Amino acid sequence: MRIAVVAPSCTLKREAAELVTALAERRGDCELVIHPQCFHSDGHFAGNDGERLGALREAMADASMDAIWFARGGYGSNRIAEAAVEDMPIAARAKTYVGYSDGGFLLAALHKAGCDVAHGPMPQDVLRDGGEAAVTRSLDWLVRRDEAATEPGLGGPAQAYNLTVLSMLLGTPIEPELSGLELLIEEVSEHHYRIDRMMFHLAGSANVRSVAGLRLGNCSDIPENDPVWGSDEEAIVTDWCARAGIEYRGRASIGHDAANRVVPFGRAAR
Amino acid sequence: MRIAVVAPSCTLKREAAELVTALAERRGDCELVIHPQCFHSDGHFAGNDGERLGALREAMADASMDAIWFARGGYGSNRIAEAAVEDMPIAARAKTYVGYSDGGFLLAALHKAGCDVAHGPMPQDVLRDGGEAAVTRSLDWLVRRDEAATEPGLGGPAQAYNLTVLSMLLGTPIEPELSGLELLIEEVSEHHYRIDRMMFHLAGSANVRSVAGLRLGNCSDIPENDPVWGSDEEAIVTDWCARAGIEYRGRASIGHDAANRVVPFGRAAR
Repeated sequence: MRIAVVAPSCTLKREAAELVTALAERRGDCELVIHPQCFHSDGHFAGNDGERLGALREAMADASMDAIWFARGGYGSNRIAEAAVEDMPIAARAKTYVGYSDGGFLLAALHKAGCDVAHGPMPQDVLRDGGEAAVTRSLDWLVRRDEAATEPGLGGPAQAYNLTVLSMLLGTPIEPELSGLELLIEEVSEHHYRIDRMMFHLAGSANVRSVAGLRLGNCSDIPENDPVWGSDEEAIVTDWCARAGIEYRGRASIGHDAANRVVPFGRAAR
Repeated sequence: MRIAVVAPSCTLKREAAELVTALAERRGDCELVIHPQCFHSDGHFAGNDGERLGALREAMADASMDAIWFARGGYGSNRIAEAAVEDMPIAARAKTYVGYSDGGFLLAALHKAGCDVAHGPMPQDVLRDGGEAAVTRSLDWLVRRDEAATEPGLGGPAQAYNLTVLSMLLGTPIEPELSGLELLIEEVSEHHYRIDRMMFHLAGSANVRSVAGLRLGNCSDIPENDPVWGSDEEAIVTDWCARAGIEYRGRASIGHDAANRVVPFGRAAR
Protein backbone atom coordinates (compact mmCIF):
# COMPACT_ATOMS: atom_id res chain seq x y z
CA MET A 1 0.00 0.00 0.00
CA ARG A 2 1.31 3.45 -0.91
CA ILE A 3 0.50 6.21 1.57
CA ALA A 4 1.11 9.89 0.76
CA VAL A 5 1.94 12.15 3.68
CA VAL A 6 1.06 15.84 3.31
CA ALA A 7 0.84 18.64 5.88
CA PRO A 8 -2.31 20.76 5.52
CA SER A 9 -1.67 22.50 8.86
CA CYS A 10 1.82 22.91 10.42
CA THR A 11 5.33 21.74 9.55
CA LEU A 12 6.29 18.11 10.17
CA LYS A 13 9.47 17.51 12.16
CA ARG A 14 12.24 15.79 10.15
CA GLU A 15 12.87 13.43 13.04
CA ALA A 16 9.25 12.27 13.00
CA ALA A 17 9.37 11.72 9.25
CA GLU A 18 12.52 9.59 9.59
CA LEU A 19 11.14 7.50 12.44
CA VAL A 20 7.81 6.81 10.79
CA THR A 21 9.44 6.03 7.43
CA ALA A 22 11.76 3.52 9.11
CA LEU A 23 8.79 2.00 10.92
CA ALA A 24 6.92 1.52 7.64
CA GLU A 25 10.01 -0.04 6.05
CA ARG A 26 10.31 -2.51 8.93
CA ARG A 27 6.64 -3.47 8.50
CA GLY A 28 7.16 -4.13 4.79
CA ASP A 29 3.44 -3.86 4.02
CA CYS A 30 3.30 -0.17 3.15
CA GLU A 31 5.40 2.60 1.63
CA LEU A 32 5.24 6.15 2.95
CA VAL A 33 5.73 8.89 0.35
CA ILE A 34 6.43 12.02 2.34
CA HIS A 35 5.68 15.09 0.24
CA PRO A 36 8.45 17.75 0.50
CA GLN A 37 5.73 20.28 1.36
CA CYS A 38 5.58 18.67 4.82
CA PHE A 39 8.84 20.49 5.66
CA HIS A 40 7.91 23.87 4.23
CA SER A 41 7.37 26.72 6.64
CA ASP A 42 5.49 29.98 6.17
CA GLY A 43 4.83 31.68 9.50
CA HIS A 44 2.45 29.44 11.38
CA PHE A 45 1.94 27.04 8.48
CA ALA A 46 3.68 24.30 6.47
CA GLY A 47 3.75 26.63 3.48
CA ASN A 48 1.16 29.17 2.44
CA ASP A 49 -2.41 28.20 1.62
CA GLY A 50 -1.58 27.62 -2.05
CA GLU A 51 1.37 25.35 -1.27
CA ARG A 52 -0.54 23.29 1.28
CA LEU A 53 -3.59 22.99 -0.96
CA GLY A 54 -1.40 22.20 -3.97
CA ALA A 55 0.40 19.32 -2.23
CA LEU A 56 -2.86 17.92 -0.91
CA ARG A 57 -4.62 18.12 -4.28
CA GLU A 58 -1.57 16.62 -6.00
CA ALA A 59 -1.65 13.62 -3.66
CA MET A 60 -5.44 13.34 -3.99
CA ALA A 61 -5.15 13.19 -7.79
CA ASP A 62 -2.29 10.66 -7.76
CA ALA A 63 -3.81 7.29 -8.69
CA SER A 64 -0.67 5.50 -7.47
CA MET A 65 -1.48 6.52 -3.88
CA ASP A 66 -3.93 4.39 -1.87
CA ALA A 67 -4.23 6.67 1.11
CA ILE A 68 -3.41 10.14 2.42
CA TRP A 69 -2.09 10.57 5.92
CA PHE A 70 -2.06 14.08 7.39
CA ALA A 71 1.41 14.72 8.82
CA ARG A 72 0.26 16.54 11.97
CA GLY A 73 -2.21 19.06 13.35
CA GLY A 74 -1.59 22.55 14.69
CA TYR A 75 -3.73 25.00 12.79
CA GLY A 76 -4.60 25.76 9.20
CA SER A 77 -6.39 22.95 7.39
CA ASN A 78 -9.69 24.87 7.68
CA ARG A 79 -8.22 27.53 5.39
CA ILE A 80 -8.03 25.05 2.48
CA ALA A 81 -10.70 22.46 3.34
CA GLU A 82 -13.48 23.76 1.10
CA ALA A 83 -11.13 24.17 -1.87
CA ALA A 84 -9.72 20.69 -1.27
CA VAL A 85 -13.02 19.01 -2.07
CA GLU A 86 -14.03 21.14 -5.06
CA ASP A 87 -14.31 19.12 -8.31
CA MET A 88 -12.48 16.16 -6.86
CA PRO A 89 -10.72 13.85 -9.33
CA ILE A 90 -11.89 10.21 -9.31
CA ALA A 91 -8.57 9.10 -7.82
CA ALA A 92 -9.33 11.23 -4.77
CA ARG A 93 -12.53 9.33 -4.07
CA ALA A 94 -10.78 5.95 -4.15
CA LYS A 95 -8.49 6.86 -1.25
CA THR A 96 -8.64 6.67 2.52
CA TYR A 97 -7.72 9.74 4.61
CA VAL A 98 -6.45 9.65 8.19
CA GLY A 99 -5.71 12.39 10.72
CA TYR A 100 -7.20 14.21 13.70
CA SER A 101 -7.02 17.45 15.70
CA ASP A 102 -6.85 20.36 13.22
CA GLY A 103 -7.08 17.70 10.48
CA GLY A 104 -10.71 17.29 11.54
CA PHE A 105 -11.66 20.17 9.24
CA LEU A 106 -10.49 18.04 6.30
CA LEU A 107 -12.02 14.84 7.68
CA ALA A 108 -15.37 16.66 7.79
CA ALA A 109 -15.06 18.13 4.29
CA LEU A 110 -13.77 14.89 2.69
CA HIS A 111 -16.35 12.68 4.38
CA LYS A 112 -19.15 15.05 3.44
CA ALA A 113 -17.84 14.83 -0.16
CA GLY A 114 -18.13 11.04 -0.03
CA CYS A 115 -14.60 9.95 0.87
CA ASP A 116 -13.51 7.26 3.27
CA VAL A 117 -11.94 8.95 6.32
CA ALA A 118 -10.82 8.03 9.81
CA HIS A 119 -9.84 9.94 12.95
CA GLY A 120 -6.51 8.52 14.02
CA PRO A 121 -2.86 9.09 15.01
CA MET A 122 -0.59 11.02 12.62
CA PRO A 123 3.13 10.74 11.72
CA GLN A 124 4.24 13.44 14.18
CA ASP A 125 2.67 11.40 17.01
CA VAL A 126 5.62 9.00 16.68
CA LEU A 127 7.57 11.48 18.83
CA ARG A 128 5.27 10.91 21.84
CA ASP A 129 6.08 8.42 24.59
CA GLY A 130 4.55 5.25 23.18
CA GLY A 131 4.12 7.01 19.87
CA GLU A 132 5.25 4.04 17.78
CA ALA A 133 2.22 2.06 18.98
CA ALA A 134 0.01 5.05 18.15
CA VAL A 135 1.12 5.49 14.53
CA THR A 136 1.13 1.69 14.13
CA ARG A 137 -2.63 1.74 14.82
CA SER A 138 -3.23 4.09 11.90
CA LEU A 139 -1.07 1.96 9.61
CA ASP A 140 -2.72 -1.28 10.78
CA TRP A 141 -6.08 0.21 9.99
CA LEU A 142 -4.99 1.66 6.63
CA VAL A 143 -3.20 -1.49 5.45
CA ARG A 144 -5.56 -4.22 6.64
CA ARG A 145 -8.55 -2.56 8.34
CA ASP A 146 -7.39 -4.07 11.62
CA GLU A 147 -10.28 -3.77 14.07
CA ALA A 148 -7.82 -4.03 16.96
CA ALA A 149 -6.60 -0.53 16.08
CA THR A 150 -10.02 1.07 16.46
CA GLU A 151 -11.79 2.45 19.48
CA PRO A 152 -13.32 -0.77 20.85
CA GLY A 153 -16.56 0.57 22.26
CA LEU A 154 -18.13 2.09 19.14
CA GLY A 155 -21.89 1.75 19.35
CA GLY A 156 -22.72 2.03 15.67
CA PRO A 157 -21.63 4.46 12.96
CA ALA A 158 -19.44 7.14 14.51
CA GLN A 159 -17.48 10.32 13.88
CA ALA A 160 -14.76 11.85 16.05
CA TYR A 161 -13.52 15.42 16.37
CA ASN A 162 -11.48 17.73 18.46
CA LEU A 163 -14.09 19.74 20.38
CA THR A 164 -12.78 23.13 19.20
CA VAL A 165 -12.66 21.96 15.59
CA LEU A 166 -16.24 20.66 15.71
CA SER A 167 -17.40 23.91 17.33
CA MET A 168 -15.77 25.92 14.52
CA LEU A 169 -17.36 23.64 11.87
CA LEU A 170 -20.92 24.33 13.03
CA GLY A 171 -22.79 26.51 10.56
CA THR A 172 -20.10 26.34 7.87
CA PRO A 173 -20.49 24.66 4.45
CA ILE A 174 -18.35 21.73 5.68
CA GLU A 175 -20.35 21.10 8.87
CA PRO A 176 -20.71 17.31 9.19
CA GLU A 177 -24.14 15.68 9.25
CA LEU A 178 -24.26 14.06 12.67
CA SER A 179 -27.80 12.70 12.80
CA GLY A 180 -27.95 9.18 14.23
CA LEU A 181 -24.19 8.92 14.73
CA GLU A 182 -22.16 8.25 17.83
CA LEU A 183 -20.15 11.44 18.30
CA LEU A 184 -16.73 11.26 19.95
CA ILE A 185 -14.94 14.40 21.09
CA GLU A 186 -11.54 15.11 22.60
CA GLU A 187 -9.69 18.24 23.59
CA VAL A 188 -6.23 19.56 24.42
CA SER A 189 -4.92 22.70 26.14
CA GLU A 190 -8.30 24.34 26.74
CA HIS A 191 -9.46 25.70 30.11
CA HIS A 192 -12.50 24.14 31.77
CA TYR A 193 -14.51 27.31 31.15
CA ARG A 194 -13.69 27.08 27.44
CA ILE A 195 -14.73 23.42 27.33
CA ASP A 196 -17.97 24.47 29.05
CA ARG A 197 -18.50 27.30 26.55
CA MET A 198 -17.92 25.00 23.57
CA MET A 199 -20.31 22.42 25.03
CA PHE A 200 -22.90 25.23 25.26
CA HIS A 201 -22.26 25.84 21.57
CA LEU A 202 -22.61 22.15 20.65
CA ALA A 203 -25.68 21.71 22.85
CA GLY A 204 -27.34 24.65 21.06
CA SER A 205 -26.96 22.96 17.67
CA ALA A 206 -29.94 20.97 16.35
CA ASN A 207 -27.45 18.91 14.33
CA VAL A 208 -25.44 17.92 17.41
CA ARG A 209 -28.63 17.23 19.38
CA SER A 210 -29.61 14.70 16.69
CA VAL A 211 -26.70 12.34 17.45
CA ALA A 212 -27.41 8.84 18.75
CA GLY A 213 -25.01 9.41 21.62
CA LEU A 214 -21.85 11.22 22.68
CA ARG A 215 -18.61 9.89 24.17
CA LEU A 216 -15.78 11.89 25.67
CA GLY A 217 -12.17 11.20 24.82
CA ASN A 218 -9.16 12.49 26.70
CA CYS A 219 -8.94 16.19 27.58
CA SER A 220 -5.23 16.70 28.16
CA ASP A 221 -3.07 19.61 29.33
CA ILE A 222 -6.03 21.58 30.70
CA PRO A 223 -4.58 24.93 31.91
CA GLU A 224 -5.33 25.85 35.50
CA ASN A 225 -8.50 27.88 35.90
CA ASP A 226 -8.50 31.07 37.99
CA PRO A 227 -10.77 30.96 39.95
CA VAL A 228 -10.78 27.18 40.31
CA TRP A 229 -13.47 25.57 38.15
CA GLY A 230 -14.71 23.04 40.72
CA SER A 231 -15.58 20.10 38.49
CA ASP A 232 -13.95 18.11 35.69
CA GLU A 233 -14.47 17.77 31.95
CA GLU A 234 -16.72 14.75 32.28
CA ALA A 235 -19.05 16.62 34.65
CA ILE A 236 -19.16 19.50 32.14
CA VAL A 237 -19.98 17.22 29.22
CA THR A 238 -22.59 15.15 31.09
CA ASP A 239 -24.24 18.38 32.27
CA TRP A 240 -24.61 19.74 28.74
CA CYS A 241 -25.69 16.35 27.38
CA ALA A 242 -28.46 16.26 30.01
CA ARG A 243 -29.54 19.82 29.18
CA ALA A 244 -29.62 19.02 25.45
CA GLY A 245 -31.23 15.59 25.69
CA ILE A 246 -28.12 13.87 24.31
CA GLU A 247 -27.36 10.34 25.53
CA TYR A 248 -23.96 10.36 27.23
CA ARG A 249 -22.21 7.04 26.60
CA GLY A 250 -19.05 7.41 28.68
CA ARG A 251 -15.38 7.81 27.85
CA ALA A 252 -13.54 6.93 24.64
CA SER A 253 -9.90 6.24 23.93
CA ILE A 254 -9.16 9.16 21.63
CA GLY A 255 -7.13 12.29 22.29
CA HIS A 256 -3.79 14.04 21.97
CA ASP A 257 -1.84 11.13 23.42
CA ALA A 258 -0.33 7.77 22.51
CA ALA A 259 -3.56 5.93 23.49
CA ASN A 260 -5.42 7.65 20.63
CA ARG A 261 -7.31 4.95 18.72
CA VAL A 262 -8.73 4.92 15.20
CA VAL A 263 -12.34 5.96 14.63
CA PRO A 264 -13.45 5.21 11.06
CA PHE A 265 -16.18 7.67 10.05
CA GLY A 266 -19.56 6.10 9.47
CA ARG A 267 -22.58 7.46 7.67
CA ALA A 268 -25.52 8.62 9.64
CA ALA A 269 -28.23 5.97 9.82
CA ARG A 270 -31.22 7.36 7.94
CA MET B 1 -33.23 56.82 36.67
CA ARG B 2 -32.84 53.63 38.71
CA ILE B 3 -30.31 51.15 37.39
CA ALA B 4 -30.05 47.60 38.74
CA VAL B 5 -26.62 45.99 38.66
CA VAL B 6 -26.51 42.19 38.52
CA ALA B 7 -23.68 39.78 37.71
CA PRO B 8 -24.70 37.03 35.27
CA SER B 9 -21.05 35.96 34.79
CA CYS B 10 -18.30 36.51 37.39
CA THR B 11 -18.06 38.24 40.77
CA LEU B 12 -17.92 42.05 40.91
CA LYS B 13 -15.09 43.57 42.93
CA ARG B 14 -16.26 45.55 46.01
CA GLU B 15 -13.91 48.36 45.11
CA ALA B 16 -15.49 48.71 41.67
CA ALA B 17 -18.98 48.74 43.20
CA GLU B 18 -17.98 51.51 45.62
CA LEU B 19 -16.31 53.64 42.96
CA VAL B 20 -19.16 53.38 40.49
CA THR B 21 -21.80 54.01 43.18
CA ALA B 22 -19.95 57.14 44.29
CA LEU B 23 -19.69 58.26 40.67
CA ALA B 24 -23.45 57.87 40.18
CA GLU B 25 -24.11 59.81 43.40
CA ARG B 26 -21.92 62.67 42.24
CA ARG B 27 -23.80 62.78 38.93
CA GLY B 28 -27.14 63.02 40.75
CA ASP B 29 -29.12 61.87 37.69
CA CYS B 30 -29.18 58.14 38.44
CA GLU B 31 -29.23 55.69 41.30
CA LEU B 32 -27.36 52.39 41.14
CA VAL B 33 -28.97 49.47 42.97
CA ILE B 34 -26.25 46.86 43.26
CA HIS B 35 -27.78 43.45 43.84
CA PRO B 36 -26.01 41.50 46.62
CA GLN B 37 -25.67 38.60 44.16
CA CYS B 38 -22.91 40.60 42.45
CA PHE B 39 -20.60 39.65 45.32
CA HIS B 40 -21.52 35.97 45.51
CA SER B 41 -18.92 33.44 44.46
CA ASP B 42 -19.32 29.83 43.40
CA GLY B 43 -16.22 28.51 41.70
CA HIS B 44 -15.84 30.46 38.51
CA PHE B 45 -19.15 32.27 38.84
CA ALA B 46 -20.91 34.99 40.84
CA GLY B 47 -23.13 32.35 42.41
CA ASN B 48 -24.48 29.20 40.81
CA ASP B 49 -26.71 29.28 37.74
CA GLY B 50 -29.88 29.50 39.88
CA GLU B 51 -28.57 32.43 41.92
CA ARG B 52 -27.38 34.37 38.89
CA LEU B 53 -30.56 33.72 36.95
CA GLY B 54 -32.67 34.51 40.04
CA ALA B 55 -31.05 37.91 40.57
CA LEU B 56 -31.31 38.77 36.88
CA ARG B 57 -34.96 37.72 36.65
CA GLU B 58 -35.75 39.59 39.88
CA ALA B 59 -34.27 42.79 38.47
CA MET B 60 -35.99 42.25 35.12
CA ALA B 61 -39.39 41.90 36.86
CA ASP B 62 -38.85 44.95 39.11
CA ALA B 63 -40.96 47.76 37.62
CA SER B 64 -39.08 50.33 39.75
CA MET B 65 -35.89 49.67 37.74
CA ASP B 66 -35.42 51.51 34.45
CA ALA B 67 -32.33 49.65 33.31
CA ILE B 68 -30.12 46.64 34.03
CA TRP B 69 -26.35 46.98 33.92
CA PHE B 70 -24.28 43.81 33.84
CA ALA B 71 -21.58 44.11 36.52
CA ARG B 72 -18.78 42.57 34.51
CA GLY B 73 -17.87 39.82 32.05
CA GLY B 74 -15.71 36.75 32.54
CA TYR B 75 -17.70 33.66 31.70
CA GLY B 76 -21.12 32.25 32.45
CA SER B 77 -24.01 34.34 31.12
CA ASN B 78 -24.52 31.82 28.29
CA ARG B 79 -25.52 29.23 30.89
CA ILE B 80 -28.61 31.27 31.86
CA ALA B 81 -29.33 33.36 28.74
CA GLU B 82 -32.09 31.20 27.26
CA ALA B 83 -33.86 30.87 30.62
CA ALA B 84 -33.54 34.62 31.19
CA VAL B 85 -35.81 35.45 28.26
CA GLU B 86 -38.46 32.75 28.82
CA ASP B 87 -41.93 34.17 29.56
CA MET B 88 -40.55 37.64 30.23
CA PRO B 89 -42.63 39.89 32.49
CA ILE B 90 -43.83 43.16 30.93
CA ALA B 91 -41.49 45.15 33.20
CA ALA B 92 -38.52 43.36 31.59
CA ARG B 93 -39.47 44.63 28.15
CA ALA B 94 -39.61 48.25 29.32
CA LYS B 95 -35.95 48.27 30.38
CA THR B 96 -32.62 48.95 28.75
CA TYR B 97 -29.76 46.45 29.19
CA VAL B 98 -26.05 47.32 28.93
CA GLY B 99 -22.93 45.17 28.99
CA TYR B 100 -20.38 43.51 26.71
CA SER B 101 -17.81 40.68 26.52
CA ASP B 102 -19.39 37.56 28.07
CA GLY B 103 -22.52 39.71 28.57
CA GLY B 104 -22.96 39.51 24.80
CA PHE B 105 -24.78 36.19 25.23
CA LEU B 106 -27.47 38.07 27.16
CA LEU B 107 -27.45 41.04 24.76
CA ALA B 108 -28.19 38.60 21.93
CA ALA B 109 -30.94 36.75 23.80
CA LEU B 110 -32.60 39.92 25.15
CA HIS B 111 -32.45 41.76 21.84
CA LYS B 112 -33.84 38.76 20.00
CA ALA B 113 -36.67 38.73 22.57
CA GLY B 114 -37.46 42.37 21.71
CA CYS B 115 -35.59 44.28 24.43
CA ASP B 116 -33.57 47.47 24.11
CA VAL B 117 -29.89 46.59 24.57
CA ALA B 118 -26.49 48.20 24.09
CA HIS B 119 -22.90 46.98 24.00
CA GLY B 120 -21.03 49.21 26.44
CA PRO B 121 -18.69 49.53 29.44
CA MET B 122 -19.65 47.81 32.70
CA PRO B 123 -19.19 48.73 36.40
CA GLN B 124 -15.98 46.71 36.83
CA ASP B 125 -14.41 48.74 34.02
CA VAL B 126 -14.13 51.64 36.49
CA LEU B 127 -10.96 49.95 37.76
CA ARG B 128 -9.18 50.45 34.42
CA ASP B 129 -6.89 53.40 33.74
CA GLY B 130 -9.40 55.95 32.44
CA GLY B 131 -12.19 53.68 33.61
CA GLU B 132 -14.29 56.51 35.04
CA ALA B 133 -14.72 57.96 31.53
CA ALA B 134 -15.65 54.50 30.26
CA VAL B 135 -18.44 53.80 32.75
CA THR B 136 -19.61 57.41 32.39
CA ARG B 137 -20.32 56.67 28.73
CA SER B 138 -22.70 53.87 29.63
CA LEU B 139 -24.45 56.06 32.21
CA ASP B 140 -24.67 59.01 29.78
CA TRP B 141 -26.28 56.75 27.27
CA LEU B 142 -28.63 55.10 29.76
CA VAL B 143 -29.72 58.35 31.42
CA ARG B 144 -30.05 60.68 28.44
CA ARG B 145 -29.24 58.70 25.29
CA ASP B 146 -26.15 60.86 24.85
CA GLU B 147 -24.90 60.34 21.30
CA ALA B 148 -21.43 61.49 22.36
CA ALA B 149 -21.07 58.24 24.29
CA THR B 150 -21.62 56.04 21.26
CA GLU B 151 -19.23 54.74 18.64
CA PRO B 152 -19.19 57.73 16.28
CA GLY B 153 -18.84 55.97 12.95
CA LEU B 154 -21.91 53.73 12.96
CA GLY B 155 -23.13 53.30 9.40
CA GLY B 156 -26.73 52.35 10.14
CA PRO B 157 -28.29 49.81 12.52
CA ALA B 158 -25.53 47.90 14.29
CA GLN B 159 -24.72 45.17 16.74
CA ALA B 160 -21.46 44.56 18.58
CA TYR B 161 -19.97 41.40 20.08
CA ASN B 162 -16.86 39.88 21.42
CA LEU B 163 -15.63 37.65 18.57
CA THR B 164 -15.52 34.48 20.70
CA VAL B 165 -18.99 35.14 22.06
CA LEU B 166 -20.45 35.66 18.58
CA SER B 167 -18.72 32.52 17.34
CA MET B 168 -20.26 30.51 20.19
CA LEU B 169 -23.72 32.00 19.49
CA LEU B 170 -23.82 30.77 15.89
CA GLY B 171 -26.29 27.92 15.48
CA THR B 172 -27.79 28.27 18.95
CA PRO B 173 -31.39 29.32 19.69
CA ILE B 174 -30.12 32.78 20.75
CA GLU B 175 -28.05 33.43 17.60
CA PRO B 176 -28.69 37.06 16.62
CA GLU B 177 -30.22 37.93 13.26
CA LEU B 178 -27.47 39.95 11.58
CA SER B 179 -28.91 40.54 8.12
CA GLY B 180 -28.40 44.12 6.91
CA LEU B 181 -26.66 45.23 10.11
CA GLU B 182 -23.25 46.73 10.65
CA LEU B 183 -21.44 44.12 12.73
CA LEU B 184 -18.74 45.25 15.17
CA ILE B 185 -16.40 42.73 16.79
CA GLU B 186 -13.66 42.98 19.38
CA GLU B 187 -11.43 40.46 21.13
CA VAL B 188 -9.16 40.04 24.12
CA SER B 189 -6.45 37.52 25.06
CA GLU B 190 -6.78 35.30 21.99
CA HIS B 191 -3.88 34.21 19.79
CA HIS B 192 -3.78 35.30 16.17
CA TYR B 193 -4.41 31.73 15.02
CA ARG B 194 -7.52 31.61 17.19
CA ILE B 195 -8.75 34.92 15.77
CA ASP B 196 -8.16 33.47 12.30
CA ARG B 197 -10.03 30.27 13.20
CA MET B 198 -13.00 32.20 14.55
CA MET B 199 -13.08 34.41 11.46
CA PHE B 200 -13.22 31.18 9.39
CA HIS B 201 -16.22 30.21 11.53
CA LEU B 202 -17.94 33.57 11.06
CA ALA B 203 -17.15 33.67 7.34
CA GLY B 204 -18.77 30.24 6.94
CA SER B 205 -22.06 31.47 8.39
CA ALA B 206 -24.75 32.60 5.93
CA ASN B 207 -26.12 34.82 8.70
CA VAL B 208 -22.80 36.64 9.17
CA ARG B 209 -22.29 36.90 5.41
CA SER B 210 -25.62 38.78 5.22
CA VAL B 211 -24.38 41.78 7.24
CA ALA B 212 -24.18 45.20 5.59
CA GLY B 213 -20.58 45.55 6.73
CA LEU B 214 -18.12 44.62 9.42
CA ARG B 215 -15.88 46.77 11.60
CA LEU B 216 -13.08 45.64 13.87
CA GLY B 217 -12.68 46.94 17.40
CA ASN B 218 -9.62 46.58 19.57
CA CYS B 219 -7.96 43.17 19.94
CA SER B 220 -6.01 43.54 23.15
CA ASP B 221 -3.55 41.35 25.07
CA ILE B 222 -2.93 39.00 22.13
CA PRO B 223 -0.63 36.23 23.42
CA GLU B 224 2.55 35.70 21.45
CA ASN B 225 2.21 33.10 18.70
CA ASP B 226 4.77 30.30 18.31
CA PRO B 227 5.71 30.20 15.46
CA VAL B 228 5.21 33.92 14.81
CA TRP B 229 1.96 34.61 12.99
CA GLY B 230 3.30 37.14 10.50
CA SER B 231 0.35 39.51 10.16
CA ASP B 232 -1.99 41.40 12.47
CA GLU B 233 -5.65 41.08 13.42
CA GLU B 234 -6.81 43.60 10.83
CA ALA B 235 -5.10 41.63 8.05
CA ILE B 236 -6.82 38.46 9.32
CA VAL B 237 -10.24 40.11 9.39
CA THR B 238 -9.92 41.82 6.02
CA ASP B 239 -8.75 38.52 4.47
CA TRP B 240 -11.82 36.63 5.73
CA CYS B 241 -14.15 39.49 4.80
CA ALA B 242 -12.77 39.38 1.26
CA ARG B 243 -13.18 35.59 1.08
CA ALA B 244 -16.77 35.82 2.36
CA GLY B 245 -17.85 38.84 0.32
CA ILE B 246 -18.34 40.96 3.46
CA GLU B 247 -17.70 44.70 3.19
CA TYR B 248 -14.92 45.63 5.63
CA ARG B 249 -15.55 49.10 6.99
CA GLY B 250 -12.46 49.71 9.11
CA ARG B 251 -11.80 49.99 12.83
CA ALA B 252 -14.24 50.75 15.63
CA SER B 253 -13.71 52.09 19.14
CA ILE B 254 -14.92 49.10 21.11
CA GLY B 255 -12.94 46.59 23.14
CA HIS B 256 -11.67 45.53 26.53
CA ASP B 257 -10.27 48.96 27.36
CA ALA B 258 -11.24 52.40 28.61
CA ALA B 259 -11.88 53.65 25.05
CA ASN B 260 -14.79 51.20 24.71
CA ARG B 261 -17.78 53.15 23.36
CA VAL B 262 -21.50 52.40 23.45
CA VAL B 263 -23.11 50.55 20.52
CA PRO B 264 -26.90 50.55 20.81
CA PHE B 265 -28.29 47.45 19.07
CA GLY B 266 -30.35 48.18 16.00
CA ARG B 267 -32.80 46.01 14.19
CA ALA B 268 -31.86 44.50 10.89
CA ALA B 269 -33.25 46.53 7.99
CA ARG B 270 -35.75 44.29 6.20
